[in-house]
Amino acid sequence: MSGFVITGRILDPISPGCTSLTWSALRIDDHGIIAERAEEGSNAYNDLCKSPGTISLSADSILMPGLTDLHIHAPQWPQAGKALDLPLEQWLGRYTFPLESRYADLDFAACVYDELVPTLLRNGTTTALYFATIHEEASLELAKSCLRHGQRGFVGLVAMDDPQLCPPEYRNSSAAAAIEATRRFITAVQQLPGNESGLVQPVITPRFIPACSDALLQGLGDLARETGVRVQTHASESDWEHQHVLSRLHCTDTEALDSFGLLRPCTILAHSNFVTHQDRTLIRNRSAGLAHCPISNAFFAGAVLPVHKILDENVRCGLGTDISGGYSPSILENARQAVLAARMLDSGTDPHVSPQSRGAPGNRIDFQEAFWLATRGGAEALGVPTGQLQTGMTFDALEITSGRSSLRLDLNENGPTAAQKIVCHAGPENIARVWINGRLIRKE
Amino acid sequence: MSGFVITGRILDPISPGCTSLTWSALRIDDHGIIAERAEEGSNAYNDLCKSPGTISLSADSILMPGLTDLHIHAPQWPQAGKALDLPLEQWLGRYTFPLESRYADLDFAACVYDELVPTLLRNGTTTALYFATIHEEASLELAKSCLRHGQRGFVGLVAMDDPQLCPPEYRNSSAAAAIEATRRFITAVQQLPGNESGLVQPVITPRFIPACSDALLQGLGDLARETGVRVQTHASESDWEHQHVLSRLHCTDTEALDSFGLLRPCTILAHSNFVTHQDRTLIRNRSAGLAHCPISNAFFAGAVLPVHKILDENVRCGLGTDISGGYSPSILENARQAVLAARMLDSGTDPHVSPQSRGAPGNRIDFQEAFWLATRGGAEALGVPTGQLQTGMTFDALEITSGRSSLRLDLNENGPTAAQKIVCHAGPENIARVWINGRLIRKE
Ligand SMILES: [Zn+2]
Ligand SMILES: [Zn+2]
Repeated sequence: MSGFVITGRILDPISPGCTSLTWSALRIDDHGIIAERAEEGSNAYNDLCKSPGTISLSADSILMPGLTDLHIHAPQWPQAGKALDLPLEQWLGRYTFPLESRYADLDFAACVYDELVPTLLRNGTTTALYFATIHEEASLELAKSCLRHGQRGFVGLVAMDDPQLCPPEYRNSSAAAAIEATRRFITAVQQLPGNESGLVQPVITPRFIPACSDALLQGLGDLARETGVRVQTHASESDWEHQHVLSRLHCTDTEALDSFGLLRPCTILAHSNFVTHQDRTLIRNRSAGLAHCPISNAFFAGAVLPVHKILDENVRCGLGTDISGGYSPSILENARQAVLAARMLDSGTDPHVSPQSRGAPGNRIDFQEAFWLATRGGAEALGVPTGQLQTGMTFDALEITSGRSSLRLDLNENGPTAAQKIVCHAGPENIARVWINGRLIRKE
Repeated sequence: MSGFVITGRILDPISPGCTSLTWSALRIDDHGIIAERAEEGSNAYNDLCKSPGTISLSADSILMPGLTDLHIHAPQWPQAGKALDLPLEQWLGRYTFPLESRYADLDFAACVYDELVPTLLRNGTTTALYFATIHEEASLELAKSCLRHGQRGFVGLVAMDDPQLCPPEYRNSSAAAAIEATRRFITAVQQLPGNESGLVQPVITPRFIPACSDALLQGLGDLARETGVRVQTHASESDWEHQHVLSRLHCTDTEALDSFGLLRPCTILAHSNFVTHQDRTLIRNRSAGLAHCPISNAFFAGAVLPVHKILDENVRCGLGTDISGGYSPSILENARQAVLAARMLDSGTDPHVSPQSRGAPGNRIDFQEAFWLATRGGAEALGVPTGQLQTGMTFDALEITSGRSSLRLDLNENGPTAAQKIVCHAGPENIARVWINGRLIRKE
């Protein structure tokens, strides 16, 4: 791979409340790193534009960072948009666990994963943090699928050994067996042929505290310290789950995960709607982060994550689709929902309650914050050098075009409006090109 | 136009809680009416299938009724997905009224409307109830655009004469002038060349009570009685608006509209988040209906319409995009949001409030109800014989295909799951063919 220069309008999340839109040039080096960025009108810009083979985007296009999906259950893809009317318990027992247990079948796994990964890429997801299943071989298929399609993938072999919550045909036989499987899986992913650059990485993945014994949680915490591999799990998703952990361990999910050694730098806690202020402080201090899944939350959380507060407190946070607790594979659709849900938290929802006591004012987020969460927020939480198109970052990027859709961006629009238009309207038909690690991996 | 037979899987909203999926055949007559419907296995079905030129849908397709958008501001299309972070007052004064006033320019109007109408058709909207602007000629352009593209259009010339709320450059000069303009507009639409079948119809459209004098409201009510033309307006959208009418007229929007003669069969009240139980009874008794606009409501209403209750009480109700208070031109995206918003009303949103007092239980709707609202609900409210593919109805229909998207429908799925999959996933790329009045008006 050799370097190249690309010029055009670049939309960049500078901070949660600031989005820049400038005409700029980027030089991408042989390793996919942005070696230089220059703004229109400067000498450096003019020099860059003279490079042979410069890619010049049209005035109709916008270059933006790729999207990060911080929470997605890859095996649940076949049931996305199905059975969402059921309560969590029935949804898990009648649909989700039976579906996940089918991934003992390698062909089935390869077939689903090879449809899901390209679907995510079409939706602009350049980085995904996946829950797979408890099956080592099938979960390795997901890692291979990411490699094959060029997606930055973080893949978790699920660990779950609790005999009450997990059905007999779909759980680890013991804590020790689950820990050893995770250890083997870490090595297998790291040594996958074609993965020399580390594009795909393993993740330690206890499903959630209720599904795991203390021994399993402690063992996985030890393994995380030993290997330095990232951790993901669910935390404080619903009243039931939050109370379950309080009763069993006499502390919150966050505190418990910390005591097991699982709350580490770049640990991603999915949902976390019921984390306390103290929990959030602990999460920030450990350099861990949250995966906000606003579509899924409407079905299974029973409350809205106060994401404005979380950004205010400098807690790392990005977005997750939570397929198939959420139905949409699109991080942008989840970004829209993050805005809508935050407004419904802010205003309240019940017209029979007086406006003074209906909502929780101060909880709105705007589209720039949603754009931040979808790009830089997710990348920072996961600790990958993407999500912003600045010197020193890795070039994971999308070319957005108006196409036949409603995404009409006047050339003289500013950053905030461009962010709003893209969050509101951009779909697969607007994502013309996708680069990951400086490599063009998708072109309409 | 001559008749034809079409066979395939048909998804039909039978009632808000019941959706059927059957392999059937329909015979469409010369006037676009479904003259006969027969189910697979019957003699009638076998006979129909032998008709020459029968259209046989593949096992990968589903035929469903076209979608109805009960509330959309066509002139606001250029600002869809823009300035939604502003409070209503600034949004109207700084963006919306200045934009609408530009439609004095006929070329601008024709250009926008000729982009919007096909966009709605690509999204499956076969019937739309439009607010245009106060400009007679430009609003007639919208009617012409509907005719040109074959869409069932209900077009309202906006009437607004209040000098406090409406800017001087964008309001009717007097109540009498607005009423005379509406009278001329009704005739002009009815007599449009090519509109002999009445595909496009005029609608009496007072913007909302705060923007209209009593004389204007009364005059338009009289005109509705005289002409029999449908009425649309906004009602009880927000705390501010609801209180404004209570202070000025000492009754609710609904009661006031009734007293002015504007609450008539097929009158559509947009939003109506704050209508009372008595209001709803009055709306039902008058055979009027509601346009639920769940995306827009998150920005400007400050509460969620209790749509489950409304369906329970047999009040007519459908969905509206409310472009550009809502950003999405898709009724299916609004149907998804109707489900999510209803769940957030049901559960409440604030994690700091105890689950017992957080929400308003009993307010959930499921995807079948959302599917009903998007199709049959909207058609019934507006009083058009569409929204269901049964004998005697007019054939306004969509062919849905899986395409490259996530919309994978197993052949053996049932009606409820098919409705859920379509509401969750179907976008323009899945809408392969669109028929209106029995005529194929769009094909991918
Ligand atoms: Zn999850
Ligand atoms: Zn409106």
